[in-house]
Amino acid sequence: MRSGTVFTQGLRQAVGGSPFWTVEAVRQVRYHVVSSNGLFEPGNTALLTGCPDAPLHPGDRRLVVIDQNVDALYGADMCAWFTAHGVDATVVPLRADEAVKQWDAVSTVVDAMNDFGIDRRREPVLAVGGGVLTDVVGFAASLYRRGTPYIRIPTTLIGLVDAGVGVKTGVNYERGKNRLGTYAPATATFLDRSFLRSLSLRHISNGLAEILKMALIRSEDLFVLLESRGAAVRADRLQGTTEDLSRAADAIIAESIHLMLEELQPNLWESALERCVDYGHTFSPTLEMHALPELLHGEAVVIDMALTTALATLRGDVTEAQAQRIYDVIRALGLPLWNEVLDDPALLDDALRDTVRHRDGQQRLPLPVGIGRHRFVNDVTPAELRDAARLLRGHAEGHVSSAGALVPEQVGA
Amino acid sequence: MRSGTVFTQGLRQAVGGSPFWTVEAVRQVRYHVVSSNGLFEPGNTALLTGCPDAPLHPGDRRLVVIDQNVDALYGADMCAWFTAHGVDATVVPLRADEAVKQWDAVSTVVDAMNDFGIDRRREPVLAVGGGVLTDVVGFAASLYRRGTPYIRIPTTLIGLVDAGVGVKTGVNYERGKNRLGTYAPATATFLDRSFLRSLSLRHISNGLAEILKMALIRSEDLFVLLESRGAAVRADRLQGTTEDLSRAADAIIAESIHLMLEELQPNLWESALERCVDYGHTFSPTLEMHALPELLHGEAVVIDMALTTALATLRGDVTEAQAQRIYDVIRALGLPLWNEVLDDPALLDDALRDTVRHRDGQQRLPLPVGIGRHRFVNDVTPAELRDAARLLRGHAEGHVSSAGALVPEQVGA
Repeated sequence: MRSGTVFTQGLRQAVGGSPFWTVEAVRQVRYHVVSSNGLFEPGNTALLTGCPDAPLHPGDRRLVVIDQNVDALYGADMCAWFTAHGVDATVVPLRADEAVKQWDAVSTVVDAMNDFGIDRRREPVLAVGGGVLTDVVGFAASLYRRGTPYIRIPTTLIGLVDAGVGVKTGVNYERGKNRLGTYAPATATFLDRSFLRSLSLRHISNGLAEILKMALIRSEDLFVLLESRGAAVRADRLQGTTEDLSRAADAIIAESIHLMLEELQPNLWESALERCVDYGHTFSPTLEMHALPELLHGEAVVIDMALTTALATLRGDVTEAQAQRIYDVIRALGLPLWNEVLDDPALLDDALRDTVRHRDGQQRLPLPVGIGRHRFVNDVTPAELRDAARLLRGHAEGHVSSAGALVPEQVGA
Repeated sequence: MRSGTVFTQGLRQAVGGSPFWTVEAVRQVRYHVVSSNGLFEPGNTALLTGCPDAPLHPGDRRLVVIDQNVDALYGADMCAWFTAHGVDATVVPLRADEAVKQWDAVSTVVDAMNDFGIDRRREPVLAVGGGVLTDVVGFAASLYRRGTPYIRIPTTLIGLVDAGVGVKTGVNYERGKNRLGTYAPATATFLDRSFLRSLSLRHISNGLAEILKMALIRSEDLFVLLESRGAAVRADRLQGTTEDLSRAADAIIAESIHLMLEELQPNLWESALERCVDYGHTFSPTLEMHALPELLHGEAVVIDMALTTALATLRGDVTEAQAQRIYDVIRALGLPLWNEVLDDPALLDDALRDTVRHRDGQQRLPLPVGIGRHRFVNDVTPAELRDAARLLRGHAEGHVSSAGALVPEQVGA
């Protein structure tokens, strides 16, 4: 829904015959994303006054659900900050990883809200942790009394740039990833990259994969920034230990989030099925599921992007030189180009079929055009996928000449 | 949100300082309520073409979740109808009463959707049963892939006029009634009063209580209709066995639903806390909880209405003559005026405090003014509640003179 959309509201009753009513109503949704580094440093007041829709006052109570690993690292600082600002915080540490992203975790958060006796008009729940934690707490809050506000404080890079700024909550169910969930934005998300100092480099890379996604489909500028500063910013864990690194980390995060929000805002409830932010997410759910726990989410996404870059190269939409730059950046960001599951053509076919089913009968596959642009296609064939996988394997093994042709011993391998 | 409301959408980024984004979006919601008696009679095509937003075609598949008691009575007719119209229906009978209105029931419905392999764009789930069943199925559907459409076919009177036409779904959690849920309207609700022929008179009365509620706060005409035809329509189980009874049943249902939808439409997500449809629902949740399983929902609601009618009488907003007419109609509809829990003043005080907590610090109590109008008050005192309970007990025991004064032996009793 873009501006110019006409909204209808009211109650209409058809005249004549049996009664027939149509109810139309319109819901206004608003949420905020606020940057502030060092949220729990003594003098930082962002959590008090940083978001007008989520004020926090001395004397207020808050329920804080925090990832247990984050609590071990930052819990003491956090509690000291709450005490210093007169906030009565009840802290509930929670195990939050993909394996426990199930209804039981939601139930634990609901119990905490019950025990706290939360006032759903005045006491938003605080969620401090990675994407799994904020998804679970957001889900529980969105159901409690049919909607209790919550606030996100992501502590991983992927949480900062991806899960933390959208409106989706949810848990896995049986074998279905995020099979149950709601569209429920946090009133506010506070972005604080200082938490990343304790993150492993592999998890830094995991988040950079989603940033690279935004660059590949939307912004050559962001790609160039990753190309020139990505490796250094990664090694620095986005801590900005020099002024130059600080500027680069801020720019990479801000630009990625801005592009993401530009894509989400007009399609918050995913009524449009052609979503360029789905780039890298066509084959990756199947890869991730088959390679678990080997691959992190961002790693599966980047392999999907490498494969579809090869596909776009075969179609002439991406030049060999551009593809080489993309693969070089993927490597520089500490991300994989290849996984053995790509050797199984049946798996790729399955993944494509599954995608078609979820996108209402069409592929609607976002493919890169050059660097920073994209288009949607509906005509990818299994044979084309096999060719793309073969081309990518050549790149991954370093057997592709600068002209892009497979060196002889690899053809037909 | 009434017409004239300005909606805002877009992405704004604050200039200067740390990045700060505001995302605004607007969601259009539409749903339909369609009347058709004898939905599963051979020639009835309402389920095929009765709602333009929920078409059903020969060759379509449908998942049908049905109350197990309803299935025993109407399942065979229903399956024959689906077969006759070329619809491949998978029928899942479910136990659905207040005691099992818990997450486990939702999980059962989710399993059924998984097993069915539902296409969430083309295959709405059908929910056939009373309010508990439609609440549970609606909840499950609203969560499945973050929102799968569903269609309601209520089979009880309270389901027809109350649960079936609103947008609330949910289940109980621990001791909290409907503690977890969503706002998720069915694409269409099909109203078919022929199901009521197998309902007990007590459950007919249970539904009439919610109809009486709408009459007392919104429509003297509807009240007069209940006064003149209510008892006969009840005895007929709204089957319309004569033309006159048929007209009366249609009018009572249609008028009640129309008034309900008029109240719901501008406040679908309950952002306004002064809701006249909350009439009868201030003390009743506490009554219902304390008297379970003795009282049905509508019975608890009508006792609340009797009490607050007495309160309004003491305030001079309802005359004694009007109160007498109201109590006479309650009795004629086979509903109770009194329950012993009203003898416990502490319970009423608790209920009032609980209401204040849920209505953001104020009573916001809808009270009747005459018959068919209402106002909201914030100044009810415990003493006043006790006086009202005493006055009501007099009425319930038949000890109130026509002038409305308590007969001497009851004063101070």
